[in-house]
Amino acid sequence: MSGFAAVDVIRTKRDGGELSTAQVEWVIDAYTRGDVAEEQMSALLMAILLNGLSPAELSAWTGAMIASGVRMDLSGVGRPTVDKHSTGGVGDKISLPLAPLVAACGAAVPQLSGRGLGHTGGTLDKMESIRGWRATLSPDEMHRQLAGIGAVICAASADLAPADRKLYALRDVTATVESIPMISASIMSKKIAEGTSALVLDVKTGTGAFMKSFDESLELARTMVGLGAAAGVRTSALITDMSTPLGRAVGNAVEVAESIEVLAGGGPADVVELTVALAREMVELVGLSVDPAEVLTSGKAMDTWRAMVAAQGGDPDAPLPTPKHVETVTAEADGVVAAVDALPVGVAAWRLGAGRERREHDVQAAAGVLCLVSPGDTVRAGQPLFELHTDTPEKFAVAHTELAAAVTLAPVGTVVEPRRLVLETVR
Amino acid sequence: MSGFAAVDVIRTKRDGGELSTAQVEWVIDAYTRGDVAEEQMSALLMAILLNGLSPAELSAWTGAMIASGVRMDLSGVGRPTVDKHSTGGVGDKISLPLAPLVAACGAAVPQLSGRGLGHTGGTLDKMESIRGWRATLSPDEMHRQLAGIGAVICAASADLAPADRKLYALRDVTATVESIPMISASIMSKKIAEGTSALVLDVKTGTGAFMKSFDESLELARTMVGLGAAAGVRTSALITDMSTPLGRAVGNAVEVAESIEVLAGGGPADVVELTVALAREMVELVGLSVDPAEVLTSGKAMDTWRAMVAAQGGDPDAPLPTPKHVETVTAEADGVVAAVDALPVGVAAWRLGAGRERREHDVQAAAGVLCLVSPGDTVRAGQPLFELHTDTPEKFAVAHTELAAAVTLAPVGTVVEPRRLVLETVR
Repeated sequence: MSGFAAVDVIRTKRDGGELSTAQVEWVIDAYTRGDVAEEQMSALLMAILLNGLSPAELSAWTGAMIASGVRMDLSGVGRPTVDKHSTGGVGDKISLPLAPLVAACGAAVPQLSGRGLGHTGGTLDKMESIRGWRATLSPDEMHRQLAGIGAVICAASADLAPADRKLYALRDVTATVESIPMISASIMSKKIAEGTSALVLDVKTGTGAFMKSFDESLELARTMVGLGAAAGVRTSALITDMSTPLGRAVGNAVEVAESIEVLAGGGPADVVELTVALAREMVELVGLSVDPAEVLTSGKAMDTWRAMVAAQGGDPDAPLPTPKHVETVTAEADGVVAAVDALPVGVAAWRLGAGRERREHDVQAAAGVLCLVSPGDTVRAGQPLFELHTDTPEKFAVAHTELAAAVTLAPVGTVVEPRRLVLETVR
Repeated sequence: MSGFAAVDVIRTKRDGGELSTAQVEWVIDAYTRGDVAEEQMSALLMAILLNGLSPAELSAWTGAMIASGVRMDLSGVGRPTVDKHSTGGVGDKISLPLAPLVAACGAAVPQLSGRGLGHTGGTLDKMESIRGWRATLSPDEMHRQLAGIGAVICAASADLAPADRKLYALRDVTATVESIPMISASIMSKKIAEGTSALVLDVKTGTGAFMKSFDESLELARTMVGLGAAAGVRTSALITDMSTPLGRAVGNAVEVAESIEVLAGGGPADVVELTVALAREMVELVGLSVDPAEVLTSGKAMDTWRAMVAAQGGDPDAPLPTPKHVETVTAEADGVVAAVDALPVGVAAWRLGAGRERREHDVQAAAGVLCLVSPGDTVRAGQPLFELHTDTPEKFAVAHTELAAAVTLAPVGTVVEPRRLVLETVR
């Protein structure tokens, strides 16, 4: 693992050559140990972003990131393990109803999650609006909870792919985030290291997603499915629409509340549809012959949710936080809602306090946006379109600005095509 | 000069966009002050290396590097100022006879020079083999010497384009040296800041040069000539052959000795030819009607050399250091020398101690290589081809390995085309 020089590795990639597996293993290990400097790795990352990685290089890179930490063994939990990862969207609370639903179907769902940064929320931030709930579990606690209840949503421990943590922080400040191989390696290294036997990826596409174009989303999905398969993790991906926010609620506590509605058999149709679609894919990957739609109706998923929340110190009956200040955004004219653009809605919720601008900031549990209309709805001038929640009312102005053009109105009587949520499945 | 974010600047260049002059000025200034981090600048440098810089960006970049330090004013020296810069070659001691020769023609030559790193030597390293000679002059001392003697070879002060110094150290460890716009900006920012009114560039091409291909050398020459003209410095460039070492001597003291031979009216024909060609170009740029070849023959250039050395504390009559150990490399067969490859000769001299492997190392004044044969010479098996000089005899082995294939032999009787030294002039 020695005998390489960082400059030679960078030069090879810069000039369009292919790195050997030994070079990739060396550079990731040496970077994690601090022997390859930040400025050397950032030059390499930019060369990779612009010149790409071959399948062999990407596989080596992902393997080296896994090898930088521990690889968990979940074979002892007594249930087939299957996880879900979303590339992030606006109002994407699907993990919250999905984990208990798939657990209620008989699988174990080890949802190791992160916090939000930017306009897409973080699952842990949402769960922390539940009184008493804690994100940190020891490996033993996690195992026991997976064996007993079947669902865990918790923070990934620091020894899971530590190279990825260090690399992500560097990519963030050097404009090297937007690389399909780097994104794939980052996601898949953590999911493979987590020890799940199967994985369903929810790859978002559209204005509110990280990947704005369908073709890029498809490439990302295929790249990640390939990495999962190569590592022995049964992996498939749904490419789903993120041009419109998912459901009505965008924020933290409001998304928990909407998730509970879904578990209770209600909730917005799109959230239910996507939850069931992902659950079907997960259940099928691990060979269980159960219909998640029936399990959802039966109330078993709600029972599992309550047990999962309680096992991590949360009170499932405690009232959720409410905002100190509420304002609305109203329609300026009559019309039919042709589109609700996910990106400005996500940015508005973020700026109202639901997300953080810097990693060290806290989020407001009660901040966010409620979308009061959906594409196809007919509205009248003055009718509320969005409800804005915050504890810091000085942020209303920026949210109003963000949302000024978020709803596109068509003339009254226009017929709006129904939304297609799942655009493609990659297996 | 504020309001930019480093990530946005990097992203623009990464995506093939053009930076505004204000963005370039901001990023160079913020980097010099430490507000843009090393890892951010290295990502930007890699994006520039791979995506290039437009003429407007390059001009802004060069201007910002000059603005990072002081711009000297040499208008008071009472002679027209003209400098020479070489992109570096093996056995390239031309600055040593050239500066006093052009001064003897009536100009002032402010040769601010550097030290060597890698297989091409540094002018200061060579001059320091003269007993007592010192590279550091105060601005006042430099002005007085230029006004009186007309020639100065000294170290550039730290306040001349400090951004370039910081950037060069970063490029060196991040494989971002080999960028024509970055090389051009680096060279031209220092030469423009130095305050010379005219400049002749010796752009080397061939195996022993930084630029191996003629086309790249031509592009570099044109880029630098354009930057000089835009900054009001009369600039031209000669593209000269560096596939064969210049002269016989490659090292430090041996190159000083060869330079003195040239100043005395002797020396290898190629060194004399290039010295006179560059001197003619320099003299012409500043409008002096003197023939440097006549001045060289007259002995005035030697007088100026002695005065220049003495003014900086050197003893022009002191014996030069001699090596503790000498070995030879001999011909393995009879033949005609078809080629003497500059690169292995430069590397051998460097490894013998004439150059440094790290910036903090010292060089050996007496180390180096003498080339005993030139293309076209007929040799016999066993005849010496190279003489190796060093104080550290454990380095002979690596030098022998480097030089094993440095001489290409053709069958006896083969006619070798004479070398063309000056390949092109760019004005």
